[in-house]
Amino acid sequence: MAFGWIDEQAQARRRAGLVRILRPRPADSPLLDLASNDYLGLARHPEVTEGAARAARTWGGGATGSRLVTGTTELHAELEHELAAHCGFEAALVFSSGYAANLAAVTALAPHGSLVVSDAGNHASLIDGCRLARGTTQVVAHADPDAVRKALATHDGPAVAVCDTVFSVDGDAAPLAALAGACREYGAGLVVDDAHGLGVLGDGGRGAPHAAGLAGADDVVVTLTLSKSLGSQGGAVLGPARVIEHLVNAARTFIFDTGLAPAAVGAALAALTLLRREPERAARARAVAAELHARLTGLGLCAVRPDAAVVSVRAPSPEGAVRWAADCRTAGLSVGCFRPPSVPDGISRLRLTARADLSGDQIERAVRVIGETRP
Amino acid sequence: MAFGWIDEQAQARRRAGLVRILRPRPADSPLLDLASNDYLGLARHPEVTEGAARAARTWGGGATGSRLVTGTTELHAELEHELAAHCGFEAALVFSSGYAANLAAVTALAPHGSLVVSDAGNHASLIDGCRLARGTTQVVAHADPDAVRKALATHDGPAVAVCDTVFSVDGDAAPLAALAGACREYGAGLVVDDAHGLGVLGDGGRGAPHAAGLAGADDVVVTLTLSKSLGSQGGAVLGPARVIEHLVNAARTFIFDTGLAPAAVGAALAALTLLRREPERAARARAVAAELHARLTGLGLCAVRPDAAVVSVRAPSPEGAVRWAADCRTAGLSVGCFRPPSVPDGISRLRLTARADLSGDQIERAVRVIGETRP
Ligand SMILES: Cc1ncc(COP(=O)(O)O)c(C=O)c1O
Ligand SMILES: Cc1ncc(COP(=O)(O)O)c(C=O)c1O
Repeated sequence: MAFGWIDEQAQARRRAGLVRILRPRPADSPLLDLASNDYLGLARHPEVTEGAARAARTWGGGATGSRLVTGTTELHAELEHELAAHCGFEAALVFSSGYAANLAAVTALAPHGSLVVSDAGNHASLIDGCRLARGTTQVVAHADPDAVRKALATHDGPAVAVCDTVFSVDGDAAPLAALAGACREYGAGLVVDDAHGLGVLGDGGRGAPHAAGLAGADDVVVTLTLSKSLGSQGGAVLGPARVIEHLVNAARTFIFDTGLAPAAVGAALAALTLLRREPERAARARAVAAELHARLTGLGLCAVRPDAAVVSVRAPSPEGAVRWAADCRTAGLSVGCFRPPSVPDGISRLRLTARADLSGDQIERAVRVIGETRP
Repeated sequence: MAFGWIDEQAQARRRAGLVRILRPRPADSPLLDLASNDYLGLARHPEVTEGAARAARTWGGGATGSRLVTGTTELHAELEHELAAHCGFEAALVFSSGYAANLAAVTALAPHGSLVVSDAGNHASLIDGCRLARGTTQVVAHADPDAVRKALATHDGPAVAVCDTVFSVDGDAAPLAALAGACREYGAGLVVDDAHGLGVLGDGGRGAPHAAGLAGADDVVVTLTLSKSLGSQGGAVLGPARVIEHLVNAARTFIFDTGLAPAAVGAALAALTLLRREPERAARARAVAAELHARLTGLGLCAVRPDAAVVSVRAPSPEGAVRWAADCRTAGLSVGCFRPPSVPDGISRLRLTARADLSGDQIERAVRVIGETRP
């Protein structure tokens, strides 16, 4: 029978305690949110939601076609201009998601005969980009410029190194300046995914590449998502104008995908405007993360020192992590729970996000609940 | 130098006259639109844009996380329920784009050791799904159930056939009932992308699978986009509940992607509500397509008989197609222009979309302009 094999997999998942279910949330959830990626607390900011509403009214519910046909509005062009200016790059291109932006950047910059050097801790979308690319991929040790150097030394011809700037599971940052140095020794390009850096790292949230002195470099390409610190949806690629022009002509997830909906463009643009007016939001998110980390390790919990706004706390087992997250939820606190197969190393953890708009009381309450419910 | 090879490709594109540029459009373009995929004319319908605006205000600018963490709102669940009900399937799952939905369906349903039989005319997103899938892909002749049968006969183990219901370039329909018959002979599943069928084909726009008597079949999975007839953004997969549950647990573009923005969910829901209230919109889109086709062939142009709302008109060359589309635009008419490498067969064409809300006068004008500007 068609799809019969699915039931065996479902049973195996059930036995392993790894069944995932969707939990639709209401608009006015009473839970304290430490699970979302809304790092700056902008997703429900009235200027952001008004930006979305206004854009939908002015431009319509959707972009109506591929960016190359009818799907580029003047609003898309404005957002691209603002993103490039904020992060310090020559040009930008907006996609329907960060996932699509990563697929585009990696596939278009790794042609037949090229080498892609990919960090072992990279996000699924970068990994899928490597798998779709015509070039050959070599996976190297996590956050290890020497490993990148070694891989590049084996290859003649175009090459790129690819990595997250902030790794989504543990919240640790990549050694960007050292990676760029390694790439330059070999004339290779560097493609970095700043999904968790934009709005959090760098002066006024200009991102990890800016903080590492790589803004505007002609051998660096940055991918972004609009769905985390900017509280919207969508993705972008930033880089030299010639790279962006290349993507317009060659990236399949740009050419064969409908443009980002105007409401998402409008929300991201409003959030970016807000961030530029209130640049201290970025530092505040980092300070909240540092405080969460200090208090949780003070309770004897094992947490990775946060480089950005993600705080990762070890759990004893997948079941332990699920129970811990469920107990937090019962106590009014929403936390992320990462476990196999969504983690690269088999280690389950709670994943907390440090929103810039958390109050002292809320931090206090979150720490207390996590401590009291520990397995 | 990093990315140096890009300039050679750019030069080759320039020499071949294949450079693509983005043309940002204003909110109040005076052009008559026969280029977008807004088949039912709903993208700017006030109920649809209000649906987007209301959702943004109520739920925020973005979904704030993966559907498995914080990114599932009650609005997502409602849209999934309505889509499944409208198209006659047991369950549905919403994605951030149709592209992501196709990647998810194909990769999750073609595990290691399985066979994917893929139509030669399939959309880029299905092709990328095949390339990402762990199973082996066999590409077969376009719209040919016997070729599917032959391919399935070579394989032991799980298998799926994959195709568009309406091919996006020429607008021809796949022989769905015959394809399902071929699959059933071999116990294979059928995955069909109804991007251009939803809202246009089937009773009240229930889509091509419904029209072919396949709604609710336990061996058929349908992918959709919310970005064409529903005037929004996003995608969906419909099918048996066990298949949908499998996707929730296994599809990387679901698990590792931020949920669709609430505004896009709200717009799609409003458009679907409208379509269910005014089911005649679907038939009207088909009638406009038939009329466009009849009039254009009446002028001696070579156009494919439309099975849905896409009318494809042959152009003599890539340059001829570009000039023709530009001349139409100068005369106030926006048409699509497809040419290599965006076409599977190297043939350039104008691509017209028959919106349900085109008036007789507008059709008249479109036909006149296309005839007068022919190369
Ligand atoms: C590091 C990283 N890159 C890319 C993405 C994908 O971005 P989006 O959700 O906007 O598609 C995510 C998460 O969703 C991520 O964590
Ligand atoms: C047949 C087909 N499938 C899938 C897609 C992708 O859908 P979306 O643009 O919503 O990502 C498209 C066009 O964009 C299409 O034409």
